[in-house]
Amino acid sequence: MAPTNCVTLLTDYGLEDGFVAACHGVIVRISPSARIIDISHLVPPGDVRRGAALLAQTVPYLPEGVHVAVVDPGVGTARRAVAVATGNRIFVGPDNGVLSWSIPDGGARAFELTNSKLWLEPLSATFHGRDMFAPVAAHLAAGLDIASVGTEFDAADLVVLPRPTRRVQEGTVDGEVLTVDRFGNVQLSVTAGDLRRIGAVTGAPLSVTLGRRTLTVPFGETFAMVPPGELVAYIDSVGCLALAVNAGNAAQRLGLPPGAHVRVAMAFSPMR
Amino acid sequence: MAPTNCVTLLTDYGLEDGFVAACHGVIVRISPSARIIDISHLVPPGDVRRGAALLAQTVPYLPEGVHVAVVDPGVGTARRAVAVATGNRIFVGPDNGVLSWSIPDGGARAFELTNSKLWLEPLSATFHGRDMFAPVAAHLAAGLDIASVGTEFDAADLVVLPRPTRRVQEGTVDGEVLTVDRFGNVQLSVTAGDLRRIGAVTGAPLSVTLGRRTLTVPFGETFAMVPPGELVAYIDSVGCLALAVNAGNAAQRLGLPPGAHVRVAMAFSPMR
Amino acid sequence: MAPTNCVTLLTDYGLEDGFVAACHGVIVRISPSARIIDISHLVPPGDVRRGAALLAQTVPYLPEGVHVAVVDPGVGTARRAVAVATGNRIFVGPDNGVLSWSIPDGGARAFELTNSKLWLEPLSATFHGRDMFAPVAAHLAAGLDIASVGTEFDAADLVVLPRPTRRVQEGTVDGEVLTVDRFGNVQLSVTAGDLRRIGAVTGAPLSVTLGRRTLTVPFGETFAMVPPGELVAYIDSVGCLALAVNAGNAAQRLGLPPGAHVRVAMAFSPMR
Repeated sequence: MAPTNCVTLLTDYGLEDGFVAACHGVIVRISPSARIIDISHLVPPGDVRRGAALLAQTVPYLPEGVHVAVVDPGVGTARRAVAVATGNRIFVGPDNGVLSWSIPDGGARAFELTNSKLWLEPLSATFHGRDMFAPVAAHLAAGLDIASVGTEFDAADLVVLPRPTRRVQEGTVDGEVLTVDRFGNVQLSVTAGDLRRIGAVTGAPLSVTLGRRTLTVPFGETFAMVPPGELVAYIDSVGCLALAVNAGNAAQRLGLPPGAHVRVAMAFSPMR
Repeated sequence: MAPTNCVTLLTDYGLEDGFVAACHGVIVRISPSARIIDISHLVPPGDVRRGAALLAQTVPYLPEGVHVAVVDPGVGTARRAVAVATGNRIFVGPDNGVLSWSIPDGGARAFELTNSKLWLEPLSATFHGRDMFAPVAAHLAAGLDIASVGTEFDAADLVVLPRPTRRVQEGTVDGEVLTVDRFGNVQLSVTAGDLRRIGAVTGAPLSVTLGRRTLTVPFGETFAMVPPGELVAYIDSVGCLALAVNAGNAAQRLGLPPGAHVRVAMAFSPMR
Repeated sequence: MAPTNCVTLLTDYGLEDGFVAACHGVIVRISPSARIIDISHLVPPGDVRRGAALLAQTVPYLPEGVHVAVVDPGVGTARRAVAVATGNRIFVGPDNGVLSWSIPDGGARAFELTNSKLWLEPLSATFHGRDMFAPVAAHLAAGLDIASVGTEFDAADLVVLPRPTRRVQEGTVDGEVLTVDRFGNVQLSVTAGDLRRIGAVTGAPLSVTLGRRTLTVPFGETFAMVPPGELVAYIDSVGCLALAVNAGNAAQRLGLPPGAHVRVAMAFSPMR
């Protein structure tokens, strides 16, 4: 089993119904030796932005192969269904932006899924994951040339989600809450590089402004550098600034939903 | 790895304990090359009817192989444990009806699991999934003749769950709520064929009676044919009439649990 | 695919993020033919004791191979990262006790993970599951000699979690709630052997003292030996005494969290 016949799945289908299993079944029937990796199926229903962030942050750790992402509130409408090749990866899903943060600028080839011979028959109006995306991905994993899935179009015409806010100026970084993980750790759109540009270094506390509140937060390398129950800022495992409570839940403490605006600076800085 | 050594699992074991992993482990130890597909393990505890619906709606998309379904509130009692062959599929589980909606009338061969040499030793009283159903399924997936699992009996004696209510007369269809999925979409026991019999066509609104309420609901092909927040009726991905709220949750809106009675008619029909 | 290239994963990472998939991806990239079995990823965040119990109760049913367990509230601190070989199994994880109930006394060989060439580069401070434990496990599953992962040390120096309370005297057994499963069944640290020592046999009711309450509970073999809604005590599938409500939830009924003290005796016994 070579890693190139790997198919990964990211959806908002949940785990209580048979939707994910139907996709697995369709893939295995077409490509019996495919290795399937489930990224997550617990994207909040219809949350394209969350799906896009999750995909982009996970793909670098996945084998090369075919990456299916279906968060598709517009299923059955005129939104395009696409396959996009970049390097040795192919992304498959609706053209609503869910793939966009995973596709580098330049060099990608985009195809609209128009070859209905690859799909299940009849095609349902509401379950393209099972009937269109899964079988197309399985054929690709089994070696089908991507040019066979449909009509090529200019990859510059793919729908792109607006990038999260992120602006560095005068010693501050403005950003937003990108995701909240299971532990309640709050990931910001602020990167390690942004922090270097304002002179922040681990060990020197940060000033974090959330709405009307400004907090001074220790900037460390891991949760346990502060006592249990205390806030800490750290660079997380994908290179973003994040806020955590050691042995606690920062999202609950701070009441910060995805999208909330955050401003970060050094707490004691000559740059401001 | 041929699709015929596929074992699928459907249970109410949940994902927080090690029950599912123990079943996987037992299968792999007996049949190292088996491909395992998890249908779902989040069937509500003991909800045989939900398990039966989920299995029947998913199996058509799964590879041929061995399908284990364990929703088994009577584990350890006199209820039979069975393996049932139909075509190139074998169903394994308790004989309490959970398998019944997946087994076509006629042509099936049924065996009671009586060959204890195939089971784990000692057999626990409360975890037959691990100790009996998983190992029997693994042996079958590895090529064991089904006649070796135990004593054959007349498949007409298998326990059959009553089918969901579904009656067409005088321009109306009486049915019930079959399932509610993750998105809150409400699947009814009313089929596309039933609707054709009363003259309903997509585009012409339906009259849907729930208890004392009668609603006029657009009948479309997909969620987005109505504005966000509006109700829509559509034929779902397994051919049943379903109610959804575009970008919302119909089950919450309507307060319709599985089993609730529903009457459907054309909203403006000469047939009534 | 031989069962010896099996990697199992137990974490508190949850299923809504991409953490588990990143671990799967890292493993498959290093060891493309590895068989991965997920034990559970729903250990309550940071609950090392729950992780230890779950691992120890599931491992006996898993193929031999490499067992990764990451419940690691001290990630990035001085706590050791280890691999421990015992028989044909290798356990990999933080040395905080999560592995300890799975490792038999005597005969184990312990290694501190110090060979950073096996890890992902750069090593994050907060996601050693992805960056250290998964790649080390994958190399081991692919055949790497365990002596290559780092420095051997005396296995007697591994961190060991205190065993659950369990004391037999004068016809009573004192124990504690070990786990609560999805069904609300309450598993106690009291074993079948403990019960034999106080003369308890199925059929003869038990006296169960929880705080100030003492209940008389039928001692049976399975749930259905009592009417729906009634309490029953039974020996569960790993050999512990457990309390269940037939077709109900004993943990909710009794309000018994893990760690709660319980005393068990025969309800009508000459031994007390």
